[in-house]
Amino acid sequence: MGRMSDPVRPRPGRPVDHSARAARRQQIMEGARSCFHQHGFHAAGTAEIAAAAKVSVANLYQYFASKDELIIAIAEEDLRSDLALIAMIKSAGSIEDAMELAVDAITQEARDPSVSRLRLEVSTEATRNPGVAHVVLRAEQMQRAALVDWIRQSQARGEISADLDPETSAFALLCLIDGAFARVATGVLAPESAARELMRAIRAMFRI
Amino acid sequence: MGRMSDPVRPRPGRPVDHSARAARRQQIMEGARSCFHQHGFHAAGTAEIAAAAKVSVANLYQYFASKDELIIAIAEEDLRSDLALIAMIKSAGSIEDAMELAVDAITQEARDPSVSRLRLEVSTEATRNPGVAHVVLRAEQMQRAALVDWIRQSQARGEISADLDPETSAFALLCLIDGAFARVATGVLAPESAARELMRAIRAMFRI
Repeated sequence: MGRMSDPVRPRPGRPVDHSARAARRQQIMEGARSCFHQHGFHAAGTAEIAAAAKVSVANLYQYFASKDELIIAIAEEDLRSDLALIAMIKSAGSIEDAMELAVDAITQEARDPSVSRLRLEVSTEATRNPGVAHVVLRAEQMQRAALVDWIRQSQARGEISADLDPETSAFALLCLIDGAFARVATGVLAPESAARELMRAIRAMFRI
Repeated sequence: MGRMSDPVRPRPGRPVDHSARAARRQQIMEGARSCFHQHGFHAAGTAEIAAAAKVSVANLYQYFASKDELIIAIAEEDLRSDLALIAMIKSAGSIEDAMELAVDAITQEARDPSVSRLRLEVSTEATRNPGVAHVVLRAEQMQRAALVDWIRQSQARGEISADLDPETSAFALLCLIDGAFARVATGVLAPESAARELMRAIRAMFRI
């Protein structure tokens, strides 16, 4: 497909094909993930990303004005995936089901270096890139609020000890998950060991 | 000081001044930390590092054969600092003293971006650099063994519930500390809030 068939600013009278745009955007993000995962944010160039995504550089720039925008889009994709997982946890029948769902999903993501390695890369980038830092802060706040809510509901149902402070438990839960992820990404733990340790640590924390 | 006064291979009959060498090595590492912290591992060049350390590039290469060696030396320095902190925890009079010592030391380190930001950078680097990954793995194993030992001793003295599994608690403790560090480095939490959250999470975990 050339540029004309995939315009950012459609010519008058020509409707934007939103689903085609979304698919193309996703294709570029997957190319970017693959390049970033192999070479890191700083070593990967726009030309390489375009090649990996099988689009022209000009086409890439119609979707993302800069490499920074791509990094931010990846951080936002991770955030959406985390919130979807929390929603899944909330709708699980029991805390046992919720934990199994969560640990399975986390292990599967951690096993994929284009996710686990890039999560570390996003954190590192957030220390010097205000746009990325903003997404990381928003992610933390949304995840934390959702987890506090879930912990309160589980306490109300008597599944988690009422003695536990929901804020502290949500903080600890996020740290445990980050820690398990980072240990898989750096090769300190195999995904299965990380899952086992994470499951045990969450059980110990929730006293279940 | 020129190259001749600071030789890697001393001329026959000339003793190596070990303390001068150690001081020079430290000076280069501090220059490297400052550059890496400002620009990241990949953007910082050897010439910049040498300038920040106030040594010649040739002198830098007498101590570190490559930027990788510098990164590994920084990771090893962090490991030594962590083990020193664990030794301090072990020799504290009570678990309350130990926690206060630990959280103070961690907060102080987290507040210094040339430490907290570089710790994230070291983790990210470990995902693609086997030399750094090796140090990160060794760090995890040594820290974990030392913490398991401390938890067992605290349990034997009745300060920590005997119900807690020492391995799981050591894993959780390391994840909590990493998580608090990362949140300060990325600007998600102020150092004081991170210290407060960390203290609460450790108390909840150890049920004290």
